Formats: sequence, C-alpha cells, structure tokens
Amino acid sequence: MLPVFPSTHHRLLRRLFSSSTSSRCPTTQPPLDHPIYMIWGSNTAVGKTLVSAGLADSVLSGSSSPAIDRPIRFNYIKPVQTGFPLDSDSRFVYRKVSDLFAARNPKPNFSLFASNRAIRGSRSVGLGELGVSEEKVVVGEGGVVERELRCETVFSWREAVSPHLAVEREGAAVGDAELVESLRRCLRVGDGGGGDWTVIETAGGVASPGPSGTLQCDLYRPYRLPAILVGDGRLGGISGTISAYECLTLRGYDVVAVILEDRGLANEVPLMSYLRKRVPVLVLPSVPEDPSNDLIKWFNEAHGVFCSLKETILSAYSERMERLHEMPQKAGNILWWPFTQHSLVPEENVTVIDSRCGENFAVYKGGNHGFVQQFDACASWWTQGPNATLQVELARDMGYTAARFGHVMFPENVYEPALKCAELLLQGVGQGWASRAYFSDNGSTAVEIALKMAFRKFTLDHGILLNSQKGSMFGRPNEFKVLALNGSYHGDTLGAMEAQAPSSYTGFLQQPWYGSVLYTGRGLFLDPPTVFICDGHWTISLSNVLQPEVLRSEDTTFTSSDEIFCRSRDHSDLARHYSAYIVQKLSSFSQLGSSTRIGALIIEPGKTALIQAAGGMHMIDPLFQRVLVKECQSRKIPVIFDEVFTGFWRLGSESAAEILGCLPDIACFGKLMTGGVIPLAATLATDAVYNAFKGDSKLVALLHGHSYSAHAMGCAAAATAIQWFKDPSTNHNISVDQRRLKELWDSELVQKISSHSAVKRVVLLGTLFAVELRAEGSDVGYSSMYASSLIQKLRADGIYTRPLGNVIYLMCGPCTPPHICNQLLKKLYGQLHEFSQSRWAEVRSVV
Amino acid sequence: MLPVFPSTHHRLLRRLFSSSTSSRCPTTQPPLDHPIYMIWGSNTAVGKTLVSAGLADSVLSGSSSPAIDRPIRFNYIKPVQTGFPLDSDSRFVYRKVSDLFAARNPKPNFSLFASNRAIRGSRSVGLGELGVSEEKVVVGEGGVVERELRCETVFSWREAVSPHLAVEREGAAVGDAELVESLRRCLRVGDGGGGDWTVIETAGGVASPGPSGTLQCDLYRPYRLPAILVGDGRLGGISGTISAYECLTLRGYDVVAVILEDRGLANEVPLMSYLRKRVPVLVLPSVPEDPSNDLIKWFNEAHGVFCSLKETILSAYSERMERLHEMPQKAGNILWWPFTQHSLVPEENVTVIDSRCGENFAVYKGGNHGFVQQFDACASWWTQGPNATLQVELARDMGYTAARFGHVMFPENVYEPALKCAELLLQGVGQGWASRAYFSDNGSTAVEIALKMAFRKFTLDHGILLNSQKGSMFGRPNEFKVLALNGSYHGDTLGAMEAQAPSSYTGFLQQPWYGSVLYTGRGLFLDPPTVFICDGHWTISLSNVLQPEVLRSEDTTFTSSDEIFCRSRDHSDLARHYSAYIVQKLSSFSQLGSSTRIGALIIEPGKTALIQAAGGMHMIDPLFQRVLVKECQSRKIPVIFDEVFTGFWRLGSESAAEILGCLPDIACFGKLMTGGVIPLAATLATDAVYNAFKGDSKLVALLHGHSYSAHAMGCAAAATAIQWFKDPSTNHNISVDQRRLKELWDSELVQKISSHSAVKRVVLLGTLFAVELRAEGSDVGYSSMYASSLIQKLRADGIYTRPLGNVIYLMCGPCTPPHICNQLLKKLYGQLHEFSQSRWAEVRSVV
Repeated sequence: MLPVFPSTHHRLLRRLFSSSTSSRCPTTQPPLDHPIYMIWGSNTAVGKTLVSAGLADSVLSGSSSPAIDRPIRFNYIKPVQTGFPLDSDSRFVYRKVSDLFAARNPKPNFSLFASNRAIRGSRSVGLGELGVSEEKVVVGEGGVVERELRCETVFSWREAVSPHLAVEREGAAVGDAELVESLRRCLRVGDGGGGDWTVIETAGGVASPGPSGTLQCDLYRPYRLPAILVGDGRLGGISGTISAYECLTLRGYDVVAVILEDRGLANEVPLMSYLRKRVPVLVLPSVPEDPSNDLIKWFNEAHGVFCSLKETILSAYSERMERLHEMPQKAGNILWWPFTQHSLVPEENVTVIDSRCGENFAVYKGGNHGFVQQFDACASWWTQGPNATLQVELARDMGYTAARFGHVMFPENVYEPALKCAELLLQGVGQGWASRAYFSDNGSTAVEIALKMAFRKFTLDHGILLNSQKGSMFGRPNEFKVLALNGSYHGDTLGAMEAQAPSSYTGFLQQPWYGSVLYTGRGLFLDPPTVFICDGHWTISLSNVLQPEVLRSEDTTFTSSDEIFCRSRDHSDLARHYSAYIVQKLSSFSQLGSSTRIGALIIEPGKTALIQAAGGMHMIDPLFQRVLVKECQSRKIPVIFDEVFTGFWRLGSESAAEILGCLPDIACFGKLMTGGVIPLAATLATDAVYNAFKGDSKLVALLHGHSYSAHAMGCAAAATAIQWFKDPSTNHNISVDQRRLKELWDSELVQKISSHSAVKRVVLLGTLFAVELRAEGSDVGYSSMYASSLIQKLRADGIYTRPLGNVIYLMCGPCTPPHICNQLLKKLYGQLHEFSQSRWAEVRSVV
Repeated sequence: MLPVFPSTHHRLLRRLFSSSTSSRCPTTQPPLDHPIYMIWGSNTAVGKTLVSAGLADSVLSGSSSPAIDRPIRFNYIKPVQTGFPLDSDSRFVYRKVSDLFAARNPKPNFSLFASNRAIRGSRSVGLGELGVSEEKVVVGEGGVVERELRCETVFSWREAVSPHLAVEREGAAVGDAELVESLRRCLRVGDGGGGDWTVIETAGGVASPGPSGTLQCDLYRPYRLPAILVGDGRLGGISGTISAYECLTLRGYDVVAVILEDRGLANEVPLMSYLRKRVPVLVLPSVPEDPSNDLIKWFNEAHGVFCSLKETILSAYSERMERLHEMPQKAGNILWWPFTQHSLVPEENVTVIDSRCGENFAVYKGGNHGFVQQFDACASWWTQGPNATLQVELARDMGYTAARFGHVMFPENVYEPALKCAELLLQGVGQGWASRAYFSDNGSTAVEIALKMAFRKFTLDHGILLNSQKGSMFGRPNEFKVLALNGSYHGDTLGAMEAQAPSSYTGFLQQPWYGSVLYTGRGLFLDPPTVFICDGHWTISLSNVLQPEVLRSEDTTFTSSDEIFCRSRDHSDLARHYSAYIVQKLSSFSQLGSSTRIGALIIEPGKTALIQAAGGMHMIDPLFQRVLVKECQSRKIPVIFDEVFTGFWRLGSESAAEILGCLPDIACFGKLMTGGVIPLAATLATDAVYNAFKGDSKLVALLHGHSYSAHAMGCAAAATAIQWFKDPSTNHNISVDQRRLKELWDSELVQKISSHSAVKRVVLLGTLFAVELRAEGSDVGYSSMYASSLIQKLRADGIYTRPLGNVIYLMCGPCTPPHICNQLLKKLYGQLHEFSQSRWAEVRSVV
C-alpha cells in the first residue's frame, strides 16, 4: 500500500491553488483541483458500483482532517446507464451510502446530505424519471451537514443492453464529443480545500462500446482521467483483468489501483506478480450471492479495503500534482532544449504537456486552471499527422512491433516491417522513378546519405575516377560543391549544413567546421523567387538579381495556387528568364576552376524555410524549381529533393515532387513518414544511382549506416501511416482520385487575414498556413521576439503555436477536418485584431 | 472472408518443400510445413474446444482435393489440462469428431483413424490415465483409412483450477522451457503433401497463468504461432474479446481469425468495426445450454462456419508462406542495406527474420526447415539488451507512450518521459559530473553535438572570441582540430567522420567532403596501445611510435582484466612513458601554426573499434586513456567520451567512464540506452559546458536539433531500460553493489579459445567477447571474407554472428545468463576447431 500523508497532501493543495486567479482559458479539460477518477471494469458484473459505493462511504464516513475546514463532497457520475430506471447505479450508490451512513454505529458527529438525479434519457425512459429525483439528509450526532453525496446519471436508456444497441433500438443517439462535453459539465471545480472527490463509473468492460459505438476506452480518452480497474476474482479473471489493464494502458491511461473480489482463487497473487509493484492490488471480501442481502455487513467488512483504496488514490493524486507542479522547474534545471536560449525561458513559460490526443495537447496550467486543451499547431515541429483514431492504431502497432521484433539489425537481413515500408515508399512517393530505399534516423542523415549518393553518381557520370581508381582511398581529384537555394535548410549535422548558405546557424560560434577553409560554404547558392498572398492575391517576389527588365503582370500575379502550379507557365517569358539566370550562374561558376564541380542539386520542392534575415516560411515559385531541375539534369548533375518536410501530404499531395511536376534522382523523407510518432528517415534513389555503388568490393558500397537503420518500429509506423493517409476510408480529406488533399483553409478567411493591416504576407499549401507579420528592424528575423504576445494570446485561446521570428504558422495533420482548420483561422484572425490594436496603443504611448 | 485457392496453395507447398534436404539445424522452432495454429480464448468457457472440434471435423470430413494424394491428418494438442481426467478437452475432440464422422450422412468414402492419449500427469492424476488410452477406426463407405485424428493432452492435473494453482496443490511443476520443448516434440513434421493440420488449445484466457505462473501469452511466445481467438458473444464480450486481442497483439502474435458464438447481442458488429477488415470475424450458432445435448445437430449447423474458418486459416497460411518465401528476393530487389556490397549478397544469404524473443531470432530457413532459433550475437548491431521479459515490458511501454503522447515537440516543453529519462541519465551515467541532457536521434548526431559543445567551451576558455564578438556570425578566428585515436570511429555523418583518421570510410569515393582541403582530416590522431588475451594471458601491444627503450614485463602483462584497470598503474613507468608520448605529440602539433588549435579530445573509454587495416574490435589500454584525459584537461581541452557503444553495461558497468576511473566534460550515449528497441541518443554535459551557451540572444544558444529530439517513446524506453538493467531484482547479472555485471564469460573456455591455433587474440569485457583469427594478407581487414565459412557454421549452430573482417564477436545483453554465454563459447570453440581443420586441409590441397 502506498503511504499517504494527509497533511502534506493538503499543504500541497493549498500551495497549488492558493494563488489561483480566474482566466479566459477554455478549460475543455476536467479540473485538477480534486481527485477525479474513472472506475473501469475488467468485465461486466465485476462490482464497479460496489467499489464506487464503498469508496464513497470510506470518504464520507472518514473523520475530518484538521486541515480540512469545510464539508466533504463526493460526486458520483454514471455517464451512460442502460436498463434505466430499473437499473440505476447512481441510485444504488445514493441509497447504499445513505443507508450505511444511517446504520453506522456509533453515529458520526456530522450529517450527510445525499442526492440522486438523472439528467437525460431516451424517450422510452420517460420524462418523469429525469431531473432531481431523490434527496435526503441523514442526520448524525452533531446534526450539522458536513458531508455531501451527489449522484448523477447523465444519459440513460431503458433496455438493459450495450449502449450502442440501446441507441439502435430506442434512439436518443449521442455523439462522442457531446458525451464527453456533458460529462465535463458535470464535473464541479472544488473549492481547493481538499474535501472534494469525484468518481465516474463506466458501463460494462473497458472496451465496451458507448452510445455511438466508439469503445469507451477511446471515447473518454481526451480527458485521460486516472483509472481504478475493478478486476475479476473468478476463474478466468486473471486473464480478463490483465488484458483489461493492457487495453487501458494501450490508450495511455494510468491505472492507479486494481481492486477485485475474493472468489477463493487468490487471483491477486499472479496479478501482483504481473504488475510488479507498480500498481497496488486490493482484495475485497466475497460478495454474498443472495440477492435479498442488503450488503450492509459486507460493506462494513470491506470498509478497511475501501479506506486503503481511498488512501491509494489520495497518494497517487498528490504525487501526480506534485510532479506536475515541479516539472517546469526541474525541466529548466536539467534539460537542454535545442534551438533555445535558456536565459530567455523563465519557468512560467515552460509548457507542461501531460498528453496528446490526436492533434490536441493537454497542457497543465498550474493553479486551479488544471489542464487546458491546445491544438498543436506546430504539428509537434512539423512531424505530426495522426488524429485520435490513428494514434490508437499506431500505439497498437508500436506495441505489437516491439513485442514481435524489438529491434533487428538490417544489413543482409529482411523482416516484414522494413520490406513493407520499402514497398510502400517505392509504390508511393517513389513511384515512377525510385528503385531503392535507404533507411536512416532523421532528415539530416537522410540528406547526408543523399549527398554521398549524388557525388558518387556524378563522379562516375563525369569520368572523374577511372574504374582502376575505384578502390583508391586517398585520392581527391575534385572538390564538390552542392547547388542549393539561399535561405534553404537541410538539417543540423555538418554534411547537411554544408548545403545551406552562411547564416546564424553556420557561424564560427555555432559550427567552426562549416565550409571549407575560406568559409564560403560548400555550396553555390541561388536566389529563388518566392510566391505568397498579399491583400488577397497570389504574387511573385523576385530577388534583386532576378529582376528582369520587362515582366508582364500576368506572369507574376495569380488568382489561385493552382495557377501557380500550372504547367503552361513553362512556356512563359518568366520561365525563359529563370533559365537564363540559372545558366548564367552555372557558367560563371564553372569558370572558377576546373577542379571544383557542382556535384549535386538539392532543393525542397515547393517550399523552403528561410531561416536567415527574413525568417519564417517561404514558398518558392515552382516554375523556378522546375526550370532548375531541368537545367541540372541536362548537365548530369544529380537532383536531390529534400522532402523531409514537404513529403507525405504536408503540402497537399503525397510527395511535393508530384505538385512540382518533375522527378528527382534522389529524395529524402522523414518527419510525417511515420505519422509523426517515431524518428525514421529514408533516402530513395533511382536504379542508376544505386548502380554507382555496385562493384566487387565492399569498399565501393555505400559505407554509411546507423545501428537502428530501418528499425522495425519506425518502419511499422510508416507502413501504417502511409496507408492511412492515402486511404479515403480512413482519411476523409483525400479527394476521390487519391492524389490531393481537399482544401483545408477557408478561402474567405485567408483573404481577410492576408488583407489585415498587421499582415505582410500569407503562404498556404496543404496542411500549412503561415503569416508573416509586418515588422521592422530587429523585429524581423529568426531571433525576433516580435510575435511573442500574439503567441501567448493564441495559446490562451487554445492554439499551441511557436513563432519563427515574426512569422506565425498553423500546421494541421493530413486528416484534420477543415472545420477545425476554420476554427484555427478564426481565432488567429481575432487575435491578430487584438494584437494590432495593442501594438498601435504601444506605438502611440511611445509617441 | 478471405478467398482461398487450394490448388495455388498446394502448388506453393510443393515448390517450397520439394527441394527439402535434411540439415543439422537445431530446429528448436515448430515446423512450418503445415498449418499449426493456437486456439486462444477471450475468457474461460467461450468454446475453444468446440471450435477445435468443429475445425477438426471440417478438415477431416472435407473431400480430398485432387492435389492431395495422401491421408489427411489432424493433430489436436492440449498442452495443459486441469480437472483431468474428468475434464479432458482432447477426449472431447476425439469423441465428438469420431461421432460426427460416424453420424455423417451420406457416409464419406473413406475411413477415419482416431486416437487420444494423455502423456504426463501429476501424481493425483494416476498412471492409469496416461499413455495411449483410446483409439478407434470409424469406417466410411470406402473403408480405406484416409483420415487421421490424433488428440493429445501433454500435461495434466486433477484439480479443476488454474494450472499454477493445480501445481501448487498437487505438484508436478513444469518449467516454461520444458513445457514449450515438450509441446514442440509433439509437433510432427508433415510430409509436405498439404494434408496435415495441427491446433493447440490453450487453457483459460489469453493471459491465464500456465503451470509455472507465467502468463500463457508469454509462455508460448517463443514460437509465436499464429492465433485463432475465440471471442465472447455474451454481454461484456465485446470488451473481453477486444482486450484479449490486444493482449495477444501486445506480445507480437498474429491473430488470423476471431470466432464467437452468437448470443443474440450481435457482438460481431462492433468487433468487425474495431478490426477494420484486417481479421475476419466468424459467428457460430448459439450452443444449446442443455448439458445432455450431444451437439451433433449444432456441429452440423455450424459446419459451414467451420469450413470458412478452415479456409481462412489455409489462406492465411499460404499467404504467410508465400511472403516468407519471396522475402529474400524482394529484399534484394528493393532494399539498400548500409555497409553492404549487394553484389556479394546472393539471395540465399539473405536472412529472413520472422521475429525476435529476447536475445533470440526466429529465422526462416526455407524448405521444410521452417524456423530456426539463432542467438543474436550481434546484439542487433550493438544495440540490443532485453531478455524476453523486458521485451514485453518495453512493448507495453511503447504502446502506452505512443497512446499517451504520440510525439510532442521538445523545445521549451516538458513531458514526463523526457524529464524522467534526463533525471535517470544524470543520476546514473552522468552522476558526479553532468548537469544537462541534450537529446538527439543517434550516436552520430550525439557526437556532432558534443563537438559543437566542446568547441564553444574551448573558444570561451581560451579567449578566442571576445565577448563583443559573440554575436559575430562570419568570423573564423581559428581552425579547430579534434584529438582522437587512430582507428577510432564515431559515426557516419560528416562531423562525426571528421573525428576519425583517414580510412576506407573517408576516401573520396565515400565522402568527398571529408577533411579540409588538404584531405588530412580535421583530427590529430594518436596511436593507442591495445590490450588483449593471447595464449591465456592479458598483454599490451604498443604501437611502433610508442615503443619505449626499456619496458618491464610486469608493466605489459597481466593475469586479469582487473589488473589492467587497477589505478596503481598510474604510477608506473608506462604511465610516464604514455604521458611523454602525448606531450610530445601535442607540442609538436602546436608548433604547426597558431591559428590551428586542438579544440576537443574524443575517445571511446575502454574500447575502440579499429575499422581500418587491422579490422575488428580492440581494447585500448585504459591507462593510456586516463593519462590522455589528464593531459587534455590540464590544457583546458574539453574531453568527450563517446559512450554510444560502451555505455549502459556493454562493457560491464553502467558507464565505461566508471571502469576507466576518470570523468569527461561531455559524453555521448545511444544504442543500449533505450534497451535497444528504438533510436535515441543523448549528449550529457557539465554545467561549465552548458554555461558557454548562455547569453542574451538566441544566436548564442546551441542551434542544433532534430524534430524528434527527446521523442516520448525513446525516452520512455530509456527510462524503463536504464532502471531494469541496474535493478538486481530484474537483472540477475547485477552484482550486489550494483556497480558491475558479474563475469559472463567462463574463464576456462576463454583460456582455451585464446590458446587455439586459429586465434590470434581475444578481447573481452562486459557483454563483449571478440576473437581475431590468425590471417595474412588480404584475409586481414574490414573487407576480408576470411571468416565467412566460420560464420555460416556458427549460424547453422544457432548463433547469428557477422564478421568484422577476420574478427568474430559474440555480444550478449546485460541480462543474458552466464550459462547462455557459456553455450555460445562452447559452440564457438567447437566450430573453431572445425574451421582450422578445414583451413589446414585447404592449405594442404594448395601445397
């Protein structure tokens, strides 16, 4: 049994809640100010209601701790009741606990107020059964009411069958969102004195369907309330209890205690051994089988066990609260976050994330705010894709794959997830060009591998090494440069960094090894034209070097993104202009010296993140990229598409190459490939590239690899996610031809935002929506804090965002429904208004 | 229902088994030549035996396919029976199927031979009940026996309770290994004609304990037989069936069909929706409740359903076999393995790994060999640690963590797994020196981060940048080199590669960007002395440059590895000699030019993998490393320990720094950190290093990160594994003081092997045992194929190894019991003998 220290517990609660202030936070999560626990059954008829009543009795009959100076309230909630009103678990709890209170000897020196009501029911239930139906005061010695028991049934049906069948037979359907929201409304915020308790009793077993057919363990998951599992003491009950425990675990619930009736089989012994001291197992005396028995004697016998359960819960609750409370400080003390100046992150700015459910975080806000739900608009840093259903699916896959394979070394081996994943990659993003999949751990390593592949291919194509020199280890006949775009970013390892132009990331302070001796980098960097929406119109911005003498406006403004991607632009003046610029850059480079060659082109098709002066997300004119690819391929310069960010529907189609309309020789994938749950990257290559590494010696092979190459869990996640995202039956955003996502961002709102006075430009494509705020001077760029106040407001409004300097973006998953994206845009629009007003006020006060 | 193509199926079987030859393989896995399925129950009393009997009947009553020219045999096995002999499921199947056969109308044109026996029982069962107890021939129209039903009960107890309780009450304990081995012996290899079937019926529910108390789902896991889950049609049965399914899934089983009795609740509807077409759900008619009913009518009604089940199984079986069969070819066609010359890997050398259970692979051998079990002596490329118990634990953790967190972005956030993992790292491998944990994805990235940290620290310590220059982006005041050891290897990304001396890995063919312009690398490389066992004695090998004029033998030979690590050596002549060598190298370097500085030292404490000419695994004299660290720290050169390989008990203690007896400023961890199931790396640093990145601008922060930094699943796996490995209650190899692993490699066998004529030297430490074979010329080194025949023999003998040139190693997990290591050594010793004899014969034939 876990120890419990009531006085510590209450001190902690006081500390946590004393400074509570009201807030505009959309508390769409249950409060945290008192223990709220769900009672789950490992089967039907294992005694969930008995446990609820026994726990209520132990709480309400307990003597007041000196630290508690107010009434103790116990709330019992039955969200879903079938067989009603004949069966009513809340009525049972109401009556039994009152009876126990009345029968208690000696009488307690305080009185109990008890009530029971049912809120909503199907037509068959009848209106007369709903509303406040029963309440009473059970008088104790002292007579003062210091205890309160409130029992509620939320939704009820008459037939004693599974809720989904009851709905089928008598109507009164209730959606999952409505059900959990109704439940949340029943949850009262306590007064912080430490005397409140709530238990919520589920219906049937852990995976029994709720009214909509959704399994209850999935239905209630958004709140992830801690769980009490009522085990099964009968023959077969060990198995039932363990598998119910695992079913809850596989949905991210924390089971705090297992409690079961003794049926003479000592089922608790194997259960304790299985649970390895992590979770206490409590044993109740056998329940008399005679239905006329009023169980008063049984409850009295079981009282000690229920008191232990109460203490276990209290102790788990205070440990959890203490941990949540200390997390920001501990994090600040021992973690070292990437890309973070710790001096600029005060403890109160640390976000404590308790869990995620689909696209939403449950964020701990301290004080009595409890958890708030925030839409993860960073898509957890551009990786995330699953909705709640896919998340459960992937969780099961991860458990299965770890259990089946753990990890299995890759070279010369084959195992199902690696093969399946490679097949899906080649049939999907590699279709029509790639023949091989090379696995690594992240985008950065995938890019380094791609560069190695490209250079080898170039070496052979251009006869740089004769065959006889193939084995030569130390020769260095040429210096290779990579052709890339200014402002591009391909990862943080040195090789990948060499493909980006000099920036804050590559300076001596950050990476003394960047570039060759002259610190010019190992790249030749072009200035790309970008496209964006300004005042409602798509337009092209050409860099200075690209500025042509004559440019027709029909070449540079567009009414839709489709127009921008239209292949007819290939024959425009602008295309010829782009081509001339590229040819000129390449030929002036080739005059520099014969030993320096452009060995590869690397681009992010459709997009580049400008990390430098301008900050943020930019979309490159696809026509420019298409022309560039064509020019390189005509010169036998291998083309690498870095699709780590853009791949797997991020930009609206499975690969961005598809939108761009041309094919690479090599492409890198990562991030969303696994649905965003686990790191894995792949570099795909054509047969010609692959063949450049064939030979009679191992020394000619591609000698790059990581221990976890093609690790089973990553490949399994990718196999599931790749199929899920492109299947219209699982991803409702997929268009009928399965090539594109439907438009997720409402065009009217996009127009409005792009025309807002605080907004400089808007970029959107697929799951991405980005806004560059108008700013000047030091407010522009990567290290700008300009957007901070807007970010804080958006977070308070339920959107977790992070700025890229003065750029704010919203990123959803490939399955996020458009109405959710709409909500995000609306909130952003509203907050932009407030933001610009407050900026304006600031400016005026300075003037 | 899945389609079934019997003729395809039989053609496939013929193709697979026609070329079968006998082999010495230790087939410790069930055969694959015919369908062998386990019948699991979602609860007790859901009708597993009825399903077994119905399936047997559908198989035995079916008409012979033209492709089957021999009798059909159905084997029914009940490994564990309680309540025996009163209850006997095998007797029920025997009698019911014979009765059904006899009652069938019209009579089939062949006869059935049926038998039933019980093999072993507790004393209470009585000898008379065991042995062949019943057999009969049921004559059909034709009279010829063409059908056979063999029913067997393997272990039996009299009391009708859970097997673990029966053992407790009446003895006859049976260990898990004994039970699965007995079960395997009951599995007959078919004749490949396609007429054999076996079903194995479990006892109770999926997680009901077996005789030893081990849950059955864990007990039978080594064979990972495909599963039929008998669902529960009663109220609550949806939940019970789903959670049982997930319990099997969470142990890596494939459930091929769910079959359940119709109890009027249409439980199959939500089950089908949950299973999303992946698994067929079959519904049996209601079973009459009258115990006197002989069920003949019911079986006839259910016949169609059982035929569907039969077809589902056949179809799943042939799909599985086809997939296994095609995997090597497909792998060769589309995968691109790291470090692999594909031209040198013919299809027959591709290893098909069906699964792993703890340290063992189940490897598909084609033909009728089925699966063989191989000990993964590569520890899946140096990452792997879990035994079977930890693997299940980690699988549950992976499911839980994916369900609770998916992935959550790290910067400025905190969530439980990341915090917990960081706490455990700092309390464990970082104890006494590290204050911060920086997460990345693999060892290579961890090393790049470490280098960035070290260079920044050096820059500040040596006043290279004035404070005012901190923000300067493009300055390059110094060129940094890293001090490292010749032959060392720190990863495959460019930054990590710069810390290795020029080698086959760094040549122009592999990495044209390696080194600065002059291709000398960015390192200063020292020649380290190595230690090894030769002819039974530990000895030191000094490189040429290190060779002193006078050296006493007590300085260079040792009787145990403890002596080598003894701190008293710090005062030896050899220590002074090492120091002089290092000082001389450093000072001659510093004369080269003032702008080039040694900015960091990186070593693998206790070990380095010499990948170059010599090939293989070498152990560096720890005294040399200690002296080197001291010399660097006295010069304020930051010291990096690359513990990616050596950390987490690989070398016998949690960190190799501990054995070495000195502390770094920065250390990198990966591989075993997560127990080897998922990629994650961490770079730990002192407070002084961390402070070098603090400032008032983000541009001073460490701007390196990966999207999956500190991903929840990796951190959760690490938290579990770190605790598991060091807890004596979970890792029996941990010594009482919890600082060291017990000695895993038997000293007598080590002596023998090190004295073997084919062996040049032996290195062992912790979980690692390596042998360098005597070889000459091109047989030496990384690309040598010298050890190939030995490797093949070891694999055939149940040890999965891979050569590093002419070096062979055995690597176990931190929890592997010493007796298993002993078996490995014995097998190696035996195979070495054969190997040297065949080499000798070869040499003689050439002469």
